[in-house]
Amino acid sequence: MKKTQRIAVIGAGAVGSYYGGRLAEAGHDVRFLVRRDYRAISKSGLNVTSPDGDFQLERPFTATDSTEIGTVDWVVCALKSTSIKDAQKLVRPCVGAHTRILVLMNGLGLEDHFAGWFGEERIFGGLAFTCINRGSPGNIHHLAYGTVTLGHYKNDPAEIESALTLWSGSKTSIVSASSLLRARWEKLCWNIPFSGLCVAGGGITTDRIMSDANLRAAAKALMEEVICAGNADLAYHGEKPGIDRDTIINSLFQKTSTMGAYRPSTMIDFVEGNAMEIDAIFAEPLRRARELKVNAQGLALLTALLKSLNQGR
Amino acid sequence: MKKTQRIAVIGAGAVGSYYGGRLAEAGHDVRFLVRRDYRAISKSGLNVTSPDGDFQLERPFTATDSTEIGTVDWVVCALKSTSIKDAQKLVRPCVGAHTRILVLMNGLGLEDHFAGWFGEERIFGGLAFTCINRGSPGNIHHLAYGTVTLGHYKNDPAEIESALTLWSGSKTSIVSASSLLRARWEKLCWNIPFSGLCVAGGGITTDRIMSDANLRAAAKALMEEVICAGNADLAYHGEKPGIDRDTIINSLFQKTSTMGAYRPSTMIDFVEGNAMEIDAIFAEPLRRARELKVNAQGLALLTALLKSLNQGR
Repeated sequence: MKKTQRIAVIGAGAVGSYYGGRLAEAGHDVRFLVRRDYRAISKSGLNVTSPDGDFQLERPFTATDSTEIGTVDWVVCALKSTSIKDAQKLVRPCVGAHTRILVLMNGLGLEDHFAGWFGEERIFGGLAFTCINRGSPGNIHHLAYGTVTLGHYKNDPAEIESALTLWSGSKTSIVSASSLLRARWEKLCWNIPFSGLCVAGGGITTDRIMSDANLRAAAKALMEEVICAGNADLAYHGEKPGIDRDTIINSLFQKTSTMGAYRPSTMIDFVEGNAMEIDAIFAEPLRRARELKVNAQGLALLTALLKSLNQGR
Repeated sequence: MKKTQRIAVIGAGAVGSYYGGRLAEAGHDVRFLVRRDYRAISKSGLNVTSPDGDFQLERPFTATDSTEIGTVDWVVCALKSTSIKDAQKLVRPCVGAHTRILVLMNGLGLEDHFAGWFGEERIFGGLAFTCINRGSPGNIHHLAYGTVTLGHYKNDPAEIESALTLWSGSKTSIVSASSLLRARWEKLCWNIPFSGLCVAGGGITTDRIMSDANLRAAAKALMEEVICAGNADLAYHGEKPGIDRDTIINSLFQKTSTMGAYRPSTMIDFVEGNAMEIDAIFAEPLRRARELKVNAQGLALLTALLKSLNQGR
């Protein structure tokens, strides 16, 4: 793989701008599909504050139409999962014969769409564990964390290697997942209980769940459902049902106990009145749990409430 | 029993004012313990609008301290269950050797407190199925329904008869319950799923639950938990576990389908920012379900969320 890669960032919200910015900072030719903040970024560039080092892209390549970007080596699709229906149209103009696509989005099953549209071998998934907010147009605030877990749709080690190479020169902490599907479910083991309860509990931060015996027990019960559903889904896909119940419960509760008053992105969407990513994070896992006849009573209740809270957004 | 009874209404909110008013209208000597609206009622009386006939009490007996009321034939305690800790102190001055006490409150286990304070034989429970709001001070708006189910703490038929006699001359629809505990649980079969989801779903009306497949399924799953817990609790108390699953599910869903955009009182509390009656309606049933080893996964999750939403109120 040649050193400088041409990269299309589709969906330059907080996450796309930040990680695309890090790739540009590392010397890649990064081209941003920008909708809301096009004027501001064209005028004043992309400005990022971060505990890993602030940076500015003075004149980033921005486009309001993917055809202006053309075909690239890598597509980083960082759309909100609520825009999944637009993804094919937005990504297609950037996809050539050898283009790889990194689905840097929240939730389950999104890579399946991309694999159907563009072929399985070129599809990767990225799971960002981070806290990044948009400030005023063109300004991105990376507040904490930032590690991205990368996996390949077919779990091909050589392909994972190529993805790691892309990121190797950048100020981004990357870990690889030997099973993308397991990585997605492991992230849901945190996201479903903690993001879900932070929203349905009234827009609370994670520390409130940790310090409230009822909410904590509810989080654990939900996590157990997700673990069972995840293992059943892995087995269904011919993979080892390798999510170890006790290990993941202990590690996620331990990790959350150090996070303080953390605001999950779904909770930020909730309190700011934006559409929440309910389908990909809650409804699709629930659908699979039901299809696999796994108990998902709590998840079903939580999903029904979140859909109700999301109505009209 | 002499025809005119002296009655203390403790807690003259919407429900206490309305039903106390109906008893006064029927000729009883009704004395209201009034806190918030004392001045307005002293000045302009108690004014009630109702589909069953408007009425006014021009100069009702009002007191701000129960000792001014003195001992009575009947105490109707219509406090919000969130004030249960104040009930003993407020009721005691009205209780003589032969005073009977009607606990006209929402939730489970409240009569147990009164039985402990004042003795079992004199305790009755009343379950109001109604929609009554407070207007400006001294004004009560009875909007719909209104039937009260009456039971005796020890299910003594002669005592139930005496309670029915009290109400017989009033414009109130009364039905008697052969088991007070079963009546309480049957009301919870509606209240837990419908009030709970109306709140946690974001302050929605019951028609939203009925028309949304996910919420409707969640309501049914919760109702099934409550039915199991109720039957286990009845058996534990030496009563017949007589809540028939299919009958009650069909009847409550049928009834709710005719209610339109109904706002349960807990949902009104929620949207108006008032304290919700979570302990008596949700936490106590959950506590019993857990003690009786009945599955209450959904109820546990819902209760944790409602407690979180209730925090600081």
